[in-house]
Amino acid sequence: MSTHADRLAALREQLARQSLDGFVVPLTDEHLSEYVGAYAQRLAWLTGFEGSAGTAVVLPAEAAIFTDGRYTIQVREQVSADHWAYVGVPATSVSGWLAEHAPEGARIGYDPWLHTRAWVEEARRALAAKGAELVAIPANPIDAVWAEQPSPSPAPMSAYSDALAGRSSADKRGEIAQWLEDKRADAVVLSALDAIAWVFNVRGGDVESTPVALAYAIVHADATADLFVAESKLTDEVRRHLGNAVRLHDRAAFGDALGNLAGKRVVADPAGSVAAVFDALDAGGATVVAMRDPVTLAKAIKNAAEIAGHDAAQLRDAGAMVRFLKWIESEAPKGDQTELSAAAKLREFREGTGALQDVSFSSISATGPHGAIPHYHVTEESNLPIERGQLFLIDSGGQYLDGTTDITRVVPVGDPTAEMRDRFTRVLKGHIALAVAIFPEGTVGAQLDSLARRPLWEAGLDYAHGTGHGVGAYLSVHEGPQRIAAPNYPGGGPAEPLKAGMILSNEPGYYKAGDYGIRIENLILIEPREVPGADRAMLGFRTLTFVPIERDLIEPALLTPEERGWLDTYHFEVLAKVGPTLDAEHRAWLEAKCAPIG
Amino acid sequence: MSTHADRLAALREQLARQSLDGFVVPLTDEHLSEYVGAYAQRLAWLTGFEGSAGTAVVLPAEAAIFTDGRYTIQVREQVSADHWAYVGVPATSVSGWLAEHAPEGARIGYDPWLHTRAWVEEARRALAAKGAELVAIPANPIDAVWAEQPSPSPAPMSAYSDALAGRSSADKRGEIAQWLEDKRADAVVLSALDAIAWVFNVRGGDVESTPVALAYAIVHADATADLFVAESKLTDEVRRHLGNAVRLHDRAAFGDALGNLAGKRVVADPAGSVAAVFDALDAGGATVVAMRDPVTLAKAIKNAAEIAGHDAAQLRDAGAMVRFLKWIESEAPKGDQTELSAAAKLREFREGTGALQDVSFSSISATGPHGAIPHYHVTEESNLPIERGQLFLIDSGGQYLDGTTDITRVVPVGDPTAEMRDRFTRVLKGHIALAVAIFPEGTVGAQLDSLARRPLWEAGLDYAHGTGHGVGAYLSVHEGPQRIAAPNYPGGGPAEPLKAGMILSNEPGYYKAGDYGIRIENLILIEPREVPGADRAMLGFRTLTFVPIERDLIEPALLTPEERGWLDTYHFEVLAKVGPTLDAEHRAWLEAKCAPIG
Repeated sequence: MSTHADRLAALREQLARQSLDGFVVPLTDEHLSEYVGAYAQRLAWLTGFEGSAGTAVVLPAEAAIFTDGRYTIQVREQVSADHWAYVGVPATSVSGWLAEHAPEGARIGYDPWLHTRAWVEEARRALAAKGAELVAIPANPIDAVWAEQPSPSPAPMSAYSDALAGRSSADKRGEIAQWLEDKRADAVVLSALDAIAWVFNVRGGDVESTPVALAYAIVHADATADLFVAESKLTDEVRRHLGNAVRLHDRAAFGDALGNLAGKRVVADPAGSVAAVFDALDAGGATVVAMRDPVTLAKAIKNAAEIAGHDAAQLRDAGAMVRFLKWIESEAPKGDQTELSAAAKLREFREGTGALQDVSFSSISATGPHGAIPHYHVTEESNLPIERGQLFLIDSGGQYLDGTTDITRVVPVGDPTAEMRDRFTRVLKGHIALAVAIFPEGTVGAQLDSLARRPLWEAGLDYAHGTGHGVGAYLSVHEGPQRIAAPNYPGGGPAEPLKAGMILSNEPGYYKAGDYGIRIENLILIEPREVPGADRAMLGFRTLTFVPIERDLIEPALLTPEERGWLDTYHFEVLAKVGPTLDAEHRAWLEAKCAPIG
Repeated sequence: MSTHADRLAALREQLARQSLDGFVVPLTDEHLSEYVGAYAQRLAWLTGFEGSAGTAVVLPAEAAIFTDGRYTIQVREQVSADHWAYVGVPATSVSGWLAEHAPEGARIGYDPWLHTRAWVEEARRALAAKGAELVAIPANPIDAVWAEQPSPSPAPMSAYSDALAGRSSADKRGEIAQWLEDKRADAVVLSALDAIAWVFNVRGGDVESTPVALAYAIVHADATADLFVAESKLTDEVRRHLGNAVRLHDRAAFGDALGNLAGKRVVADPAGSVAAVFDALDAGGATVVAMRDPVTLAKAIKNAAEIAGHDAAQLRDAGAMVRFLKWIESEAPKGDQTELSAAAKLREFREGTGALQDVSFSSISATGPHGAIPHYHVTEESNLPIERGQLFLIDSGGQYLDGTTDITRVVPVGDPTAEMRDRFTRVLKGHIALAVAIFPEGTVGAQLDSLARRPLWEAGLDYAHGTGHGVGAYLSVHEGPQRIAAPNYPGGGPAEPLKAGMILSNEPGYYKAGDYGIRIENLILIEPREVPGADRAMLGFRTLTFVPIERDLIEPALLTPEERGWLDTYHFEVLAKVGPTLDAEHRAWLEAKCAPIG
C-alpha cells in the first residue's frame, strides 16, 4: 500500500500532466453528502485525515489541510506535518489561503461536482486578485492516481412503505408540483440523497450510516419525475413502487438531462446542488431559479406516522441502551474493557433488538481524556482501556425502519469527583432548561441556544459545539434546516423558525481537555403548547428518548425544585415505558436507576 | 400646499418625461442614514408616511408602500388607501412585488445614491424575469417635482475634543492605515455620517437627533484622508482641528474623486455605501474590496474616556428623568396632561441640565392604547390626553457632549390592574435576566435574546421587537454592529460577537393591542467578568442607567430572591448616585421610590 507521501507526490505529477498548479480536495460527494461512500473518500486517501469535515489544497511546493476546531488535535495525529500545513477554519478560509499562497498566474483546479457555486465564485474572486485562475476539472485528478479506488456501492434501492412514511410519493410530488406552480417554475433539481429518498419513499445502502441510494432527480410541475439511478440497483419491486409517473434513467445521464431543459424555469438549491448542476443548466439554456428546494422543510416536519415510528424506535433503542448501561456499570470497573469493546457491545445490544438496520453514525466511545474531544472517533490505534476514576462517554444511535436515534450518556467508572458531579449537574440543568422551554411560533433555534448554556456560563464554562441538530425519519442523523446553535456557528441554518413536527437533539456538554468529557443528549420533538392566557401560538418540546440519566453524577443540591421535578418525572416515564420491555433483572436495575432523586 | 394625490400625479408625469414606467422611493439619504435631513424626506413628502422605515414604489397604474410590522397601523392612518396599496415586509419584498406587478418590458428607475448594491442586484434579477429593466437615475425625479424641497442643512461642522473622544483623529487614522496594510488595500471609502464623525473627531447638526455633518471621506494607507464637505460648514477652528493630513474638498466633488482611484485597491462597505459609490469606483478602474470597513467595530468598542463620558451623561440625564417622573406622578392624575405636554415637559427638564445638545430621538410619549404601538410617534393629530387607569410609557433620550442616552419608563396613572402588574413584572424579570447574564467571549447577541423573553414566553406572551441595540458616544442612538435580537430580525447584525466596551440597550417589553404597552429600558455596558474557576474569558453587563423602576407596577411575589436582590441593589445605587444631585424635595421622593421592595 502506498504511503500518504507517495500519494501526494503522485497527485502532484498528475496535476502537472493536467497542466494544473494546484487542486482543491473537499470531503464530500456529488450530492454534498455529510457521510460519503468509500469511493468519495479522497481526502482520507490523500492525507490520512479521518474526521468528518475538512479540505486539502495541494500546490507545487506546499500543501495544506483545513479543519475546524473539532479536529485541531485529530488532524495533527493523523496527518503528517512533514508534508502538510494545518490551517484552522473559519479563521482562515480555503479561498483566503489560496489568495495568499497560490503562485502568481497559477491555474488551480477544482472538481465542479464537489463544490457549491458560492464556493467557486468566492475562490475565483480571491484568486483573481493574484492573477490566478480557478479551473473546473470534471475528471478528478485523484481518481486518475488512486489505483485501488473503490467503485460506488452496488447496494440495491429499496421501497420504503407508505405506512412508515405516512404519505405516498405521489402525494409528496403533488405538493412539490403545487409549490412549483406558486413559484412559476417548471421543475426542481434534487441532488441531496436524503431528499430523493424522502420524495420517492425509497431507501438504499450506498452511504455509511445513512440509508440512501446514489441518485439524482428532477421533479416537474405536472408531478411526474425523472430519477437517475444505476439500473443495477433497480429491483422489480422498487420499479413497481416508483410507478409510471417516475421515469427511470441511468445515473450517468443526469448531466445531459440538465442540458435538455432549455426555456424551462428550473429551481436548484444553491446549498444542495453542486456547481456542475448550475453550469449544466446554464449551458443548456434553462432559466435557473436559485432557492431552497421545497423538500428541505417538508422533510423536517414529521407527520403522525413518522412520529409514531420514532416513538417506537426510541423505546426499542432504549431497551438496548439500558442493557448496555447495566453491562458497562458492572464490567468497566473490572478493568477488561476498552473503547472499542464497549462500542462493539453496544452494537451487539442494538442488533439484539432484531430491528437494527445500521448504526446512525460511528459511535463516539470515549473514555477519560478522549471524552473531552467532542467528535472523537475510536480506532485500533487510539483505543484506550476504560479505567477506574474516568468518565466514559458514549454517543451513538441506530437506524431502524421506523426511525433514527441519537443519544449520549456518561457513566462514571468508580467514584466521580465533586468537580465531575458539579459539571454534570450544570450540563443537566441546561438540558432541562431546553427540554421545558416554551416559545412562540417564529422563534429560531439560535435564540434558545443560551438556555442550555446558562448554568455553565454562570461558572465561567461553555462547550464549543451547537446545542441541537435536526434528525431524519430513517434517514440522516443530521438534517436541516432547523438548528439550535449560535448564528455564527459553522453549519449554519439557525435562522430557521422552529415548527411543530421538527425533531432536534438536545445535547449540551462540558469538556475538560486531557481529563474528561460530559454530554447529555436526548432527541426532542416540537409540539404545539396550550398556555392559559396566551396571546399567541406557542410551541414546546416533548422528549423522545427514554434512558436513565446517571444519578451518581448528579449533585441534587444544585437542582431547583422544578429541575428535580423534571428529572423525577422523566425517570418515572422511562420506567413506565421501557420497564415492561425488559426481563426481571434489567427491570430491577432500571427501577433503582429511576428512583426519585430526593 | 399640494395634496399627496397631487404629488403622486406630478411624479407620474415626471416619470413619463424621463421615459420611466416606475420609480422606487426608499427612506434614506446618500449615507444610508437611519434619520435623514429634511431635504431627503422624499417618502414622507410623496405619501404622508412619517414612520422611520419604509419604501414606496410608483407604477403607471398602481402604487404601493412597504412597511414592516411596527408600522402596520400607522401607515394606514397616514397614507391614503385611495392611491396606495399597503404591503408588509419582509413577507413581500420590494423586488418580489416589482416582479409581480411591473409591466412586461417596463423601465423602472431607482436613485443609485439611495440604495445598496445588493438591493440593486436583487431587484434587477427580479425584474429580468419579466423582461423589465432597472435603470439608475442619478437625477432623482422627486426632486424635479418637489417645489418646496428644503436645501441640505447649513449647520457648521464642529470639532469634538480629543479629551471626550479619548483618542485623536490621527491615532484613529493610523489604526485604519494599519488595517488597510493588513488587507493589502490602499484606501477605504467612508459614507456613513457617524463613522466620519468618529474618525475625524467632528460633529455637526445636519440630521435630526444625531450630531453629524453631511460629508464623505476616503482614508488612505498613509493615514492621510480626503474629506468631502460643503465649504460653508468649515470654520477656521474645525480646519485647524482637522490638520494638514486631511485634505478638504467640496461634498459635490466626491463622485469624481471615486473615479480617480484607478489601479488602487479600495475598500467599500456594501452595507454602508450606496450603489453609486461602487459604480463610480468600478468605472474609474479601482479594484473594489467589498467588506465591512474598520470603523464600524472600532467605533462600537468604547474607550475609557467615552465610558466615563457616558457615565456622566447618564447621571445628568437621570436627574432630569427623576424630576419628570415625580412631576408626571403628581400631575397626570389631575387630568390636564397629554402625550405632547408630557414630552415637552421632559424636554424642559433635560434642557434644565444646561448640557442638552438635542434629544437623541423624537420621544415616544404614549398613553394607554398608544403604548401598545412600540414605535409610536405623537403628533398634533394623534395626541391623547393622559387619563386615570392608563399606563403612560415614555421612551426618550438626550444628546450630551459626553454621551447619548436612551431610557424607557412606564408610569401608572391611578391604580394599575393585576394584569398590568403581572405583565410589568415579567418584563422586569426578563430585563434582570439580561442585566445579570454572564457569557463567554465569542457569544453573539442572538444567543442572549431569549433570556429577556423567557418570563413572557412562560405565560404565552412575547414582544415583536429586538431586545437590544448599540448606542453611540454623542453619536447615533442606534448603532451597530452589535445587537440582541433574533438572527432573522429585520436590521440584522446579530451574528456579531459581543465585546467588552460595547454599549447596548436592554429593553424587553409587552404590548396589549388597544390597551397598554410596557417597556423597561436601561443602557448596559459590556465588561470583562472574573468568574472563580472559569476556564475561559467571560463577559457581563454593567447597567449604565440609574432611574427608579416603578414599584407600584411590580408584583413582588413573582420575583425570585435573586431578582429582588438585583432590584434593591439597583435602587440603592440609583439613590446613592442620583440622590446627591437633587434638592431635598426630589431626594425625598427618590428615597421612597428606591426603598427595598421587601
